[in-house]
Amino acid sequence: MTIAGSERQCDTLVTGGTIITMDAERRIIEDGAVMISGNAIQSIGPADELPRDIKASRIIDAAGKVVIPGLINSHSHIPMTLFRGLVEDLVLREWLEKVWHYELSGLSDESFCAGAKLAFAEMIRSGVTCVHDMYWAYMAIMDVAEGIGFRLLSGPPITSIGDPDVEQMFGAARAALDRIKNYRFTQPVVQAHSTYTTTPAMMYRVRELKHEYGVQFTTHAAENQAEVDEVVEAFGRRPVEQLHEYGLLEPGTVLAHCVKLLDHEIELLSETTTSVAHCPESNLKLGSGIARVADMLAAGVNVCLGTDGAASNNDLDLFGEMRTAALLQKGYNENPELLTTTQTLEMATINGARAYGMGDLIGSLEAGKRADIVIVDFDKSHLTPCHDVPAHLVYAVNKADVDTVLIDGTVQLEDGELTVLDEDAIKAEVRAIAETFE
Amino acid sequence: MTIAGSERQCDTLVTGGTIITMDAERRIIEDGAVMISGNAIQSIGPADELPRDIKASRIIDAAGKVVIPGLINSHSHIPMTLFRGLVEDLVLREWLEKVWHYELSGLSDESFCAGAKLAFAEMIRSGVTCVHDMYWAYMAIMDVAEGIGFRLLSGPPITSIGDPDVEQMFGAARAALDRIKNYRFTQPVVQAHSTYTTTPAMMYRVRELKHEYGVQFTTHAAENQAEVDEVVEAFGRRPVEQLHEYGLLEPGTVLAHCVKLLDHEIELLSETTTSVAHCPESNLKLGSGIARVADMLAAGVNVCLGTDGAASNNDLDLFGEMRTAALLQKGYNENPELLTTTQTLEMATINGARAYGMGDLIGSLEAGKRADIVIVDFDKSHLTPCHDVPAHLVYAVNKADVDTVLIDGTVQLEDGELTVLDEDAIKAEVRAIAETFE
Repeated sequence: MTIAGSERQCDTLVTGGTIITMDAERRIIEDGAVMISGNAIQSIGPADELPRDIKASRIIDAAGKVVIPGLINSHSHIPMTLFRGLVEDLVLREWLEKVWHYELSGLSDESFCAGAKLAFAEMIRSGVTCVHDMYWAYMAIMDVAEGIGFRLLSGPPITSIGDPDVEQMFGAARAALDRIKNYRFTQPVVQAHSTYTTTPAMMYRVRELKHEYGVQFTTHAAENQAEVDEVVEAFGRRPVEQLHEYGLLEPGTVLAHCVKLLDHEIELLSETTTSVAHCPESNLKLGSGIARVADMLAAGVNVCLGTDGAASNNDLDLFGEMRTAALLQKGYNENPELLTTTQTLEMATINGARAYGMGDLIGSLEAGKRADIVIVDFDKSHLTPCHDVPAHLVYAVNKADVDTVLIDGTVQLEDGELTVLDEDAIKAEVRAIAETFE
Repeated sequence: MTIAGSERQCDTLVTGGTIITMDAERRIIEDGAVMISGNAIQSIGPADELPRDIKASRIIDAAGKVVIPGLINSHSHIPMTLFRGLVEDLVLREWLEKVWHYELSGLSDESFCAGAKLAFAEMIRSGVTCVHDMYWAYMAIMDVAEGIGFRLLSGPPITSIGDPDVEQMFGAARAALDRIKNYRFTQPVVQAHSTYTTTPAMMYRVRELKHEYGVQFTTHAAENQAEVDEVVEAFGRRPVEQLHEYGLLEPGTVLAHCVKLLDHEIELLSETTTSVAHCPESNLKLGSGIARVADMLAAGVNVCLGTDGAASNNDLDLFGEMRTAALLQKGYNENPELLTTTQTLEMATINGARAYGMGDLIGSLEAGKRADIVIVDFDKSHLTPCHDVPAHLVYAVNKADVDTVLIDGTVQLEDGELTVLDEDAIKAEVRAIAETFE
């Protein structure tokens, strides 16, 4: 931690905690310090290497706490908090149709934004600082995120659901991408719902858009066996094979779910540097199955982690998702060596950043990166004793242990209280909307 | 809710919450009331049926909250909180041997009791009011539980581990059972570690003890394939078959794990009214596999839920265990209709009570039963909106949402604070012990 004389001041100094950097060396710094200036990490290292005359406008004492990069929720549909617990115990297709009934029942953008705000509150409380969102009301939701200062991975979704005017849809997509370029907290992503809810022609145009704008692309793929069977029946090939044909297996593509993959498909994902957003709890809850995450990681696929929407989870808790992901691979494969705590933490941080082309900006605590920082209080009975900090983060930390959250250098949660969002008002608004459902 | 004139007073009145009774009709009472006198539930029903002139020494306002029976952790080794996160990523047998290294390294009963106290603190905070414990220092731990007022299912463990003097072991077991009879919070249970760490002669004597004292019996069985293979190799039959031969498959027997069962073994458990304590997170973490819970329930087996020890979980969170259990059966069997929220709640409450012969005393909220009551605060972002209370309890409630806990009529947690235990002192004691491990 070399600090020049001119750099001996910062806006915020986080000091005294154990830092899980998730940097290239996966360093764990006991009694570490993070200097934050503006929206970026100015420097990071052992606290005892800090110059004594350092000046900070604000000091956050992290003694007895653990400092980690903000978690990245790599696949979600955030306004679906509105439908939390509304549709239970159905397989994906029946579940989707029941959910579509509510989604298409005339809810306003304002209602979806209320659901999104609730999701932001829930995620800030649980240490998530960046979320992917695929939803119809995406432009309105982005404005909410910009207003709060929550990092969003979003953009126009392409789908044939509801029989849209295709020219108009792509026109709107271009207009959106032009506008999103100038947003501060939103990273633009071109999205397609799936290969079974789009036409091949649409998907070729999606690829053009991805390349023209130089942005990421995401879609659902191979979520369950019924989807694979339906796609094979309709198109003569499997979803991942289809995406390969469309030229969409490539860097900058993130496939959500990938529960039902054959060996050659895992190879394809690896060879083409395609990322996978693994959503274990949603996959389990909808009876979709158990993704071959250990096999994908062994093949070198970049696997990140998502909660999916709250209607099939039923929360947006990435700590819980890490635990489920790690436990599941060990148990299903009857091999406790699979999914180490480091690999699991990578899925929830740096792998998500890389998947969405933000590996240089977020996903680890390093000088120069954005100050998206989560501080977890380890002075809890269920975290005592602490023989292994990463194991605690994966297996024992509860989202309610999150104490302080900074996004882009701004404190969003302080001593367990939200600083920007009016949580009571948001809950009341969402309850009022939920009461109208029929 | 019929209340005679003479019964219009009580010690504690819980009013205004939604009550999940878990009684025979699985009633859900909105705006319900529970009258508590001494250590028992005096009456329960809709709040508007309460007489206006009711007198209560203490009123607990549960408006916006959900009132449930205290959760029952049906299989654990509670002092193993000492080893939380100490042994990671090993299969059961290697994990056990490494854990035994620490357990047999000369730790005192006082140290194990410190671990037990930590477990009680963690469990009270997470809504558990009764726990099974299998451990060497069982008498000392029982004294701790009696002092706190925590409900314990425990008793002498029989095992050949450490090559004990068998006569002495059974003598001590009898002395213990004679003593435990008079305990207030402990329900005596005869325990054997497993069929691979006991001799057939020991197991026949265990059965005698069970019948002589009229108590329950529990042991580990069929936890993973390696155990089954080892037992088949040594004894020519599988663990459950062995137990059947010993006459130990019968009412009052609880088998922990049962991950590797064949169809005929599930039938045997059902026919003999033998209960199973399912520990999904421990089974996953040790790579043991996924128990056939849906098949067992379909066959009529009484399945309850446990966390196992914190060294293989790594917490004692029964809400998390419910979520994992339900998600796992749906996902593994690719059938989202399996393990309904009601079935899952039963596993964590009434089924545990029945397994340990306490179905008349705990496991549901009914007049005459012990007042083991948990109040969960639902005014949280991650529980908003609330379309389905039981679904929230299984999938979205976080243990940190537990607000108030009563055991035997005594408030153990109030507004999130422990009333009986000195948590800071316990954590400090455990940290000091953990620092001595080599």
